[in-house]
Amino acid sequence: MNVAIVIYILGWILMCEGALMILPLLVSLIYMEPHAFQSFVATMAICLGLGLLIIHRKPKNRVFYLREGFVTTALSWIVISIIGSLPFIFSCTITDPICALFETVSGFTTTGASILKDVEILPRSILFWRSFTHWIGGMGVLVFLLMLKPVSGASNVNLMKAESPGPQVEKLVPKVQLTAKILYLIYIALTIIQILFLLAGKMPLFDAVTTAFGTAGTGGFSIKNDSMTSYSPYLQNVVTVFMILFGVNFTFYFLILQRKLRRAFGMEEVRWYLLIIIVAVIVITFNTRGLYENLGSAFQQAFFQVGSIITTTGFATTDFNLWPEASKTVLVLLMFVGACAGSTGGGIKVSRLVILCKTVRKELRHFLHTQSVGKVTSGGKIVPHEIVRSINVFMITYVLIFALSVLLVGFDNHDLITNFTAVAATLNNVGPGLELVGPIQNFSLFSDGAKLILIFDMLAGRLELFPLLLLFLKDTWKRF
Amino acid sequence: MNVAIVIYILGWILMCEGALMILPLLVSLIYMEPHAFQSFVATMAICLGLGLLIIHRKPKNRVFYLREGFVTTALSWIVISIIGSLPFIFSCTITDPICALFETVSGFTTTGASILKDVEILPRSILFWRSFTHWIGGMGVLVFLLMLKPVSGASNVNLMKAESPGPQVEKLVPKVQLTAKILYLIYIALTIIQILFLLAGKMPLFDAVTTAFGTAGTGGFSIKNDSMTSYSPYLQNVVTVFMILFGVNFTFYFLILQRKLRRAFGMEEVRWYLLIIIVAVIVITFNTRGLYENLGSAFQQAFFQVGSIITTTGFATTDFNLWPEASKTVLVLLMFVGACAGSTGGGIKVSRLVILCKTVRKELRHFLHTQSVGKVTSGGKIVPHEIVRSINVFMITYVLIFALSVLLVGFDNHDLITNFTAVAATLNNVGPGLELVGPIQNFSLFSDGAKLILIFDMLAGRLELFPLLLLFLKDTWKRF
Repeated sequence: MNVAIVIYILGWILMCEGALMILPLLVSLIYMEPHAFQSFVATMAICLGLGLLIIHRKPKNRVFYLREGFVTTALSWIVISIIGSLPFIFSCTITDPICALFETVSGFTTTGASILKDVEILPRSILFWRSFTHWIGGMGVLVFLLMLKPVSGASNVNLMKAESPGPQVEKLVPKVQLTAKILYLIYIALTIIQILFLLAGKMPLFDAVTTAFGTAGTGGFSIKNDSMTSYSPYLQNVVTVFMILFGVNFTFYFLILQRKLRRAFGMEEVRWYLLIIIVAVIVITFNTRGLYENLGSAFQQAFFQVGSIITTTGFATTDFNLWPEASKTVLVLLMFVGACAGSTGGGIKVSRLVILCKTVRKELRHFLHTQSVGKVTSGGKIVPHEIVRSINVFMITYVLIFALSVLLVGFDNHDLITNFTAVAATLNNVGPGLELVGPIQNFSLFSDGAKLILIFDMLAGRLELFPLLLLFLKDTWKRF
Repeated sequence: MNVAIVIYILGWILMCEGALMILPLLVSLIYMEPHAFQSFVATMAICLGLGLLIIHRKPKNRVFYLREGFVTTALSWIVISIIGSLPFIFSCTITDPICALFETVSGFTTTGASILKDVEILPRSILFWRSFTHWIGGMGVLVFLLMLKPVSGASNVNLMKAESPGPQVEKLVPKVQLTAKILYLIYIALTIIQILFLLAGKMPLFDAVTTAFGTAGTGGFSIKNDSMTSYSPYLQNVVTVFMILFGVNFTFYFLILQRKLRRAFGMEEVRWYLLIIIVAVIVITFNTRGLYENLGSAFQQAFFQVGSIITTTGFATTDFNLWPEASKTVLVLLMFVGACAGSTGGGIKVSRLVILCKTVRKELRHFLHTQSVGKVTSGGKIVPHEIVRSINVFMITYVLIFALSVLLVGFDNHDLITNFTAVAATLNNVGPGLELVGPIQNFSLFSDGAKLILIFDMLAGRLELFPLLLLFLKDTWKRF
């Protein structure tokens, strides 16, 4: 392990975080919140002080392999979460450090699970920071850094691999820095378009910006206690559409910008993603039609909740904990499905599931013709054996972490549905679960131990398991 | 697909089932139950009549590959279940055909999930048949047939592969017929020893025999409404020990018979199996100590329930649905773990989980040294790549079937824990779940559609998924 370069990059990450805090700082000035202003200044001082101290000395050894990429990513996310929780603590809005860390990790990982009972009493700048962490975490802080400065020489792709969601990292263009720039440009553009649509629906600017942050990162923190319930149907529909748009693989938008419409709309993952949404909306509309005035209203609620859960955003316009069991089961399963690879959404990802299903079919065919060597294809191309294997192992690691988390959280002695959906909601970066962690509840009921496990799950889910697990392997820390 | 030979073997399976019904027939004579006697005679007549008609013509084409093995196994289990449900229907003890099929599939697959509210009113011979299906299904009806008659020439191992639980079929000796004989001899010997131990505890002979059948097959049907609760602690402890013994890989006993003690006790799977049991018992004893008079009593209850659930037997001596959440969570996880490969138990199997965990570790090491090609080892030997892949795919298929079943059963609109544990209890061949399908409840609440899905799950669980899925593949039915 080349520890020097890992620490060097962590220094730059701190500089980035300090710089990004200018925005909430400005908000605290606008709304004249002196307490919050001081908190942000103090945190920025820590970021820049520590950061400068670290990047002052450049590492001689520039060796940077996949292992360095994974470890840097895991540590970066831990560091930005710890530093990011300081404004909450300094401003006394969340006094308990573990609660503050939980809220910040939930923000950066775009989970949206909150420990706060009442968010409306928070200062505006703190609310802004809370939503802004979603936006930063959605595309990734390392991708942000790569856009500005290629820190690890020719091996930048090893940094991107660990942070980008999905089984394969898709470089839109050969250069990593340019790929990062294109991704962020699409991201910023879509966010601005959403803000405009929300403003057109007479949403106040502050609400529009924070809601767009929560949607873009598929996060789910809201500035209202009732999430999106009190906004007009128009605004709810805008959010629904944008949640689904941010759950689409960004390669789709890149292809559209290049006018390769045929290739864009031919993307297998996007087609399955939309098909799953349509089927789920139909099933839930039908199943919940008795609960709403008319079929249209049931459809609108189903559409919002399905979009919110499959993209792992976690906004809510209704307490779906009161829905019939079949609809709740559909939502729980959608939590696991998640959005497309290469989007800001979490979960297992549609492309992984499609390939997993194909692997099963291949295995069945293998029993019929033992000699045949079947290949798994995706979008007409053969999926390399290496990728298939890594998806299989991902899935197994996922199940093992899931089971272990449910077991450990179980010692808090809440009911099994609460524990099961709390783990599902954090490991998949969704936010709300069912029962005691349902959409109108929060996560403050858990003990410190359980909160730490859920924090681990949120980070593991966002970084797709392996980077975080690698930290626990003794071999990782050997000098090679 | 060589359909002729598949049908030919089905004919022999029918003959076997007819012959095995002599035992319950004798019981109906002893207890003078004319109604049940007639039912068994009628069913036997159907078995032997159909069977003779089929085996009358020997197939010319003796080609028998893995696909024929899988399809034969799947169809055999469906046929014996349908025929096996006839005594219930003819004797009017279960009038609804789907309920009768559910009860019989639950018997043969050694699940032990019942749709009956009151079993104590049933005729003794029907109770005997119900428990006897556990014993037949435990070791497998095709293994039974192979012991008597090698039906498919040199390819008998293809029949055994599909019916034997675990990732690899272990031939104790090179000859398949001899392996089948040794397995059944160990099975019969252990069953008789258990009966003797039970009789020594003053259990009536009928109770002892049926309880031993339920234990040996790791089934769980009891002849009492309260399962094992009303028996003495001595009898409960005997059952606990034998449940755990029947969950051990039978290779262990074969090695002991050969006096290869070192190799026997060195079996990695058996060590992990016992370790998991010990840890689970300690955790649950500690967690439930407040519910019982003293620690000893809590330990005894924990020991019984853990043994019952990990071996997927499903007997109960206490309503564990009332236990604290942590203990319930441990039990639910044990349902999935299951017993050893090559035992009569169900679930995912300890050996699979051990190899899966090693696969994850290998993958993590792969990130550290991208050039290295790690190998998964088990008991000092390298596990062939083919087996590792097939275990991975098994696990994924398992998760997909599980998720789909929970979704479909969800339309009955029971609570999520009921649905989740009902699927877990059937797919792992355990028997009882939690809430509405808890140990003092039964499965009669489900609709016909949900019952059919759970029947599918029981069969899929017992045959380890692929044989049953193969029936749904169009290619399977092509003539090659």
